[in-house]
Amino acid sequence: MTMTSLFDFHKIKITDTFFGDYQRLTREVVIPYQWDAINDRITDAEPSHALRNFRIAAGLEEGEFYGMVFQDSDVTKWLEAVAWSLSQYPDAALEATADAVIDLLEQAQWEDGYLNTWYTVKEPGQRWTNLAENHELYCAGHLFEAAVAYYLVTGKQKIIDISCRFADHIDSVFGRNSGQIKGYPGHPEIELALLKLYEVTANRRYLDLATYFIDERGTTPHFYESEYEKRGFTWRSVTNGPGWMFKDKAYSQAHAPLKEQQEATGHAVRFAYLLTGAAHLAHLKQDDARYQVCRRLWDSMVQRQMYITGGIGSQARGEAFSCNYDLPSDTAYTETCASIAVMMFARRMLECEGDAEYADVMERALYNTVLGGMSLDGRHFFYVNPLETAPVAIRHNHKYEHVKPVRQRWFGCACCPPNIARTLSGIGQYIYTVHPETLFINLFVGNTWTHQIDGQPLTLTLEGHYPTQDKIAITVDCPKEITHTLAVRIPGWCDNAVVKVNGDPVNHAPIKGYLHLHRCWKAGDIIEMQLPMSVRPVYAHPQVRQLAGKVALQRGPLVYCLEEADNGCDLHNLWLDERLPFTLISGTGLMQGKTLIQASGVRLRALSDDTGSLYQFDQPATEGESVALTFIPWYAWANRGEGEMRIWVNSQRYQ
Amino acid sequence: MTMTSLFDFHKIKITDTFFGDYQRLTREVVIPYQWDAINDRITDAEPSHALRNFRIAAGLEEGEFYGMVFQDSDVTKWLEAVAWSLSQYPDAALEATADAVIDLLEQAQWEDGYLNTWYTVKEPGQRWTNLAENHELYCAGHLFEAAVAYYLVTGKQKIIDISCRFADHIDSVFGRNSGQIKGYPGHPEIELALLKLYEVTANRRYLDLATYFIDERGTTPHFYESEYEKRGFTWRSVTNGPGWMFKDKAYSQAHAPLKEQQEATGHAVRFAYLLTGAAHLAHLKQDDARYQVCRRLWDSMVQRQMYITGGIGSQARGEAFSCNYDLPSDTAYTETCASIAVMMFARRMLECEGDAEYADVMERALYNTVLGGMSLDGRHFFYVNPLETAPVAIRHNHKYEHVKPVRQRWFGCACCPPNIARTLSGIGQYIYTVHPETLFINLFVGNTWTHQIDGQPLTLTLEGHYPTQDKIAITVDCPKEITHTLAVRIPGWCDNAVVKVNGDPVNHAPIKGYLHLHRCWKAGDIIEMQLPMSVRPVYAHPQVRQLAGKVALQRGPLVYCLEEADNGCDLHNLWLDERLPFTLISGTGLMQGKTLIQASGVRLRALSDDTGSLYQFDQPATEGESVALTFIPWYAWANRGEGEMRIWVNSQRYQ
Repeated sequence: MTMTSLFDFHKIKITDTFFGDYQRLTREVVIPYQWDAINDRITDAEPSHALRNFRIAAGLEEGEFYGMVFQDSDVTKWLEAVAWSLSQYPDAALEATADAVIDLLEQAQWEDGYLNTWYTVKEPGQRWTNLAENHELYCAGHLFEAAVAYYLVTGKQKIIDISCRFADHIDSVFGRNSGQIKGYPGHPEIELALLKLYEVTANRRYLDLATYFIDERGTTPHFYESEYEKRGFTWRSVTNGPGWMFKDKAYSQAHAPLKEQQEATGHAVRFAYLLTGAAHLAHLKQDDARYQVCRRLWDSMVQRQMYITGGIGSQARGEAFSCNYDLPSDTAYTETCASIAVMMFARRMLECEGDAEYADVMERALYNTVLGGMSLDGRHFFYVNPLETAPVAIRHNHKYEHVKPVRQRWFGCACCPPNIARTLSGIGQYIYTVHPETLFINLFVGNTWTHQIDGQPLTLTLEGHYPTQDKIAITVDCPKEITHTLAVRIPGWCDNAVVKVNGDPVNHAPIKGYLHLHRCWKAGDIIEMQLPMSVRPVYAHPQVRQLAGKVALQRGPLVYCLEEADNGCDLHNLWLDERLPFTLISGTGLMQGKTLIQASGVRLRALSDDTGSLYQFDQPATEGESVALTFIPWYAWANRGEGEMRIWVNSQRYQ
Repeated sequence: MTMTSLFDFHKIKITDTFFGDYQRLTREVVIPYQWDAINDRITDAEPSHALRNFRIAAGLEEGEFYGMVFQDSDVTKWLEAVAWSLSQYPDAALEATADAVIDLLEQAQWEDGYLNTWYTVKEPGQRWTNLAENHELYCAGHLFEAAVAYYLVTGKQKIIDISCRFADHIDSVFGRNSGQIKGYPGHPEIELALLKLYEVTANRRYLDLATYFIDERGTTPHFYESEYEKRGFTWRSVTNGPGWMFKDKAYSQAHAPLKEQQEATGHAVRFAYLLTGAAHLAHLKQDDARYQVCRRLWDSMVQRQMYITGGIGSQARGEAFSCNYDLPSDTAYTETCASIAVMMFARRMLECEGDAEYADVMERALYNTVLGGMSLDGRHFFYVNPLETAPVAIRHNHKYEHVKPVRQRWFGCACCPPNIARTLSGIGQYIYTVHPETLFINLFVGNTWTHQIDGQPLTLTLEGHYPTQDKIAITVDCPKEITHTLAVRIPGWCDNAVVKVNGDPVNHAPIKGYLHLHRCWKAGDIIEMQLPMSVRPVYAHPQVRQLAGKVALQRGPLVYCLEEADNGCDLHNLWLDERLPFTLISGTGLMQGKTLIQASGVRLRALSDDTGSLYQFDQPATEGESVALTFIPWYAWANRGEGEMRIWVNSQRYQ
């Protein structure tokens, strides 16, 4: 049986106040802003040139290529964001703009289907010669993702046709047959995208090609080595400069076949994109062995290498994992795109198995790092998301050179901003998971959706004020009664959830974190959930060196932090007594509408000037000054200018 | 009045058990080992080629230059170590070897006095074209230092003659006259060396040339820029690669004239070498304005940027200072050479003013980072000296790429090993400071020395078992009675020192940390000092972000640390209760002869396997398991294989 994951998710209407705001921001600010960016109309940001590259490739303009080898993907990620936005807010002008971009893509496409501006303009004749380091297949993947979204939302076929021509070309170039390149991309992405393209086209060759790319990866003799030699290099010329990917194959998860890999390693985005494809494939093929490989690597990522913010990538070099339990807060990399990739990976794992751990992690990544990647004004972005900062140290100590104290307008490597836009405008894809007998409800994002069960429509309307308030109502509408299981997630952070169906408490236990409600559903049925959001202190595994003696606060899915704006400087001298009660307060100013936490603590060593001895034998005061500590949701940090921030604070419980 | 700092320090006989062992090790192991190293006879170490470069430059061998641009200095630092060793242990064979090296230097010297193998062999014709980045003047400085030491100890003139020919040549090349290069070295060193050469030759031109180099530095129009343009570069070609020194002038303390500089900044060794010269010059010229500049920069270094180990340089990039109170333990650079430079700087400041703070810092650097730079077997060296390590993280997280978990045999950039050797064998230079009316006794290193006061000999014999035991005796011998002040240092770490002269307690107060004993000294007088060495918890300034809630232990001048070898892994889960008594125990095995500290603490979270959730809401146990913590002197860490280490441990006082 071949499964599918296509269930009209693009028809979900988001009604959520929280994400509604983000979708409005995406529509009114982010998409127009990024349109200006890829058209080089933003004066104080790094140039993009992304659309000019396409016009040059199409022969419409003279000029040279400018930008990263993956610059094309900024355009297709923008297109995908537009598609998802159109699914919520039809906008004829925006759609016409997108159509024109698609026309441009078509004009830049070669006769044989090939489409990439770097290799058309900058390195013609060098197609497919450096898959390890460059990004042709990666850019193809983002084209396919945009195509699928745009087609589903608008019904327009052209971008699918462009994509299929390119995919067919790729399928002819790569494979195990004589004359084909026996290779795969240095940056996974096309795998997950081919599987999407397969799902809308039902062209099995795309499924097979994705399978090929996933299974060929890391086999010996090693593709990177033969490709490297073909480019005229020898092993002796490999240094830390050119060719380093050949030495460090784990950077791109190509050090061994995926089925033999035991740990999440290397570049975090590459890892999670690859695993998103692998998990999707496991689902489509209903292949448990493939699923177990994904599960093992998921566990490695989540149980031993993930930040409390849902971020992955402990180090800047290689934007990569480091080792188990190495989770420094201040030098963390935790790229925004990596957490988006975590959501994608989680979504595919949920299709394989209804285990709420996946949804818990998806939610953790979404409400913390993904949201935190964008400023509240929608115009500034973090690529790197530290869990602790002190701006003066960022400026002076080179180990923080990847860290910015506040969000930036645009990046030379601009992968994150459009990735956030497509994720927020396409959030509907993550809410539900369809299994044959069960409809899983993963996220509590307000929405209305009509799902077909055995040919019968079942409309669900989810309402609430998540993540601020703890009540959720899911109402059912259906012309005919439908017997089916609705499985609602009981979040991992919630110990005392109450679920009622039509007012009657449900008393049976959840299975793998989902409360399975099997009944004959009829119009007007209502599932009421109460998910009490107490403030919960969080402690890290004892092997996490950096977090000994520290505590973080979480409420609902939101991780909180201290900021200098509320608590003064020298946050390292604050000790939280998490045994004392917490008070919820309403934010003001830029924190308007957000729930803040006030807690009790002490400032153990007085705010000091820079006099006094650097080291002293005198015992410092341990009583300290009692202070009220104010925590804000971490995703909203650095919206009030530069200042210190920290998630993990000293705990008074450790004595 | 022109002062001098030359007082027959080379005639001091070290009788100290502690440093006697180190001097024996230097003589028997380090000097022969480094001789093998610079002759490329050590199979499993990086090649040196240093002596071959000289033979090639001298025309005695065919071949190409190999090594760093400052490779020559490995030979002259070795020569200086030999000189100081000969001052303690005459060794005809070693002296003959050194003489042969000096002959070789002479053969490699040009007619006009120039001497540098890089610019003789590798870049002939390019002399003095890249002072900013390269090290001709730096190497000249190390030659002069070796020359002064070798001449003082052996009385042989040849290396002084070589040095003077080179110094005269340099003096003709550099200066403010027409046709001269109006420049100065990118790496200070020649300034302090020219002042030494001035002191043994009384050639005032060397004093003037050192003054010129110090005063010209950082003036505008900027020498680096004009030199850079002369080399054919333009400002547009400056990137992070070649020419970066021109952008980051503070790296080499050339961003402003020294007298305008307010903070210790840039490359730590460069800074402290420059200041050593500047302080020496202040002393020689009796120039208080120059001294106050040095004092201001000393304070910046010591009061806001120095590690408890006497290390400086908080970051690997640029081997440099970062900013005030940024003192990370794990990513610290704290190069061994930088702490040697701190000792040199301190020594020169003591000549300017008898303030024991300088000696306290000199002692801190010596007994901790300088000693710690070498293994107990004398064959392995640290270039970088972290205050905390976890080997698994070092291997996986690139921010630790400069850190080694154990000492290495030799380095491609081999500045530290010979620098340690010359410092340990020449330790006599740091014990005393001579002021006109007062003889200051800075370090409690056992020795005998005869000093001339107004033409009368005064012999002092210092005995004790410092830093292990707390009693020191200084006996006086003199054929005639001498009225003079002997000022003994009361260490900053000692609150309750007892000093007696001929059995009578001295009750007056110290002045700037020295107890001034003015009397008519006669043969048989004895100064007895008791410097009780209790174990003292140390706390850092509240602005040191990384050390909040942490405590270190110090006994006498020695900073202690926890090692995995004694305390198991996961040192971050140990909490010290420094309010409970400490027990001194004798080390065994490789720790034989060392005083260890046992302290009380708890292991708050059990040693765990790698199961269990990465984050949990459950409150961890806070009672923990009571454990005895064993601290060893930090300088002796990493002599028992790889393992975790930390100086700053969690304190139970913080709650």
